[in-house]
Amino acid sequence: MINIVILGGGNVAYHLTNALLQNSVVNVVQVYNRSLGKIDCFKNSTSITNNLSELKDADIYILAVSDNAISELSSALNLKNKLVVHTSGSMALDELKSTSKKGVFYLLQSFSRERKIDFSTVPICIEAESEKDLMLLETLVKSMSKNCYHINSTQRKSLHVAAVFVNNFVNHLYHIGHEICEQHKMPFEILLPLILETANKITTLPPLDAQTGPAKRNDTKTIQKHIAMLTKNQQEIYTLLTKSIYNTYGKKL
Amino acid sequence: MINIVILGGGNVAYHLTNALLQNSVVNVVQVYNRSLGKIDCFKNSTSITNNLSELKDADIYILAVSDNAISELSSALNLKNKLVVHTSGSMALDELKSTSKKGVFYLLQSFSRERKIDFSTVPICIEAESEKDLMLLETLVKSMSKNCYHINSTQRKSLHVAAVFVNNFVNHLYHIGHEICEQHKMPFEILLPLILETANKITTLPPLDAQTGPAKRNDTKTIQKHIAMLTKNQQEIYTLLTKSIYNTYGKKL
Repeated sequence: MINIVILGGGNVAYHLTNALLQNSVVNVVQVYNRSLGKIDCFKNSTSITNNLSELKDADIYILAVSDNAISELSSALNLKNKLVVHTSGSMALDELKSTSKKGVFYLLQSFSRERKIDFSTVPICIEAESEKDLMLLETLVKSMSKNCYHINSTQRKSLHVAAVFVNNFVNHLYHIGHEICEQHKMPFEILLPLILETANKITTLPPLDAQTGPAKRNDTKTIQKHIAMLTKNQQEIYTLLTKSIYNTYGKKL
Repeated sequence: MINIVILGGGNVAYHLTNALLQNSVVNVVQVYNRSLGKIDCFKNSTSITNNLSELKDADIYILAVSDNAISELSSALNLKNKLVVHTSGSMALDELKSTSKKGVFYLLQSFSRERKIDFSTVPICIEAESEKDLMLLETLVKSMSKNCYHINSTQRKSLHVAAVFVNNFVNHLYHIGHEICEQHKMPFEILLPLILETANKITTLPPLDAQTGPAKRNDTKTIQKHIAMLTKNQQEIYTLLTKSIYNTYGKKL
């Protein structure tokens, strides 16, 4: 049995706590948050507290807090010989200022409060200072997910940037598609099968091979017609991404 | 029974012919292509030809050919009182130069030869000059798909641009994610659950509400760190999309 204290009240902390409460290998001994309101939902399942001096004994302390809070919260912890991990994609391991042993437990998924996530498919990226702690984290991960990765701090930072491209930026392109549909009185749902197929296609085909469209073909006639239909902001994005696609395949031909 | 002749040998023609051969409401009377090699696979299922003067009698002639070929191919058809439709997203109805009745039958999906598509979910956008022809196309669509839309030529052109954003451009962002993973010796598969969740999330939440990340939060510290890690081309795209996201939410706040 791995005893765990979770610190945080945001979306990651919420879903992680729910998942670990169901986990037969894990005992969630406590959940901490500055304000009790956000963790009140767990009061019948485990101990909750807003007082750091009341933290219970555990094997792993998971700081599921915002990047900015990691340094301050970890320096307030007095947990010698315990393993303290953060869950940030962009922060290095040594952002943890605790006197404890340190590690990282990064869930590479986007969490919204209202969407249930199947943890068995979530890639979990771990890092620790010692082999022994890494093994402990690996045991934890393998009890939750099929996707365990040993990723160092440099790699993880790059992974976080890659995630911005395939999640934040992709979602913004969906938003532009939504804008165009609205402007011409068409329901956005009309684009959903294409969006899902585009995502599913690359589970079996590298994106480089899955690319289609006027930019790849250098179909300048269609490109010009498209640009003429767009707003200024949409034009800038269309032009830059078209150029980038063209250059990607121009080099290859 | 609706009698159909399909003209074309590309991916759309291939998948459409396969789908219609299974359709109990439809009789595929013939498949035409300039070169017989590409439609040879249908020779045991229907009549095939590479000679326009041998076209059989049918209710609908579907030109599933490239945008550039629509005008020339349609002007070579001598099919008075027959309905001839093209399958292009970006071409207007009057790109058809036949003396026949005209329409559009646009499948809003991305087709690769090797990927099987479930036609029941493909949005099919139809347009015709007369109400009677529109009804005929609607009967055809409803025998194939749950998603039938009446879309005029102006709307369809916009839809085609929207599709470039949510398919071609999104796939290119997947490619950049792939590049970053390769560069730092991480498997691309690590990003797949996030990619699928990002696409699935907007089936229940508008993309405007699903947006997360440093650009939306205007987290300039993280943004600067990210930009420093990227190649010049990636930096340009990162900067422009970050600005666009920031402006989208800046205006809203």
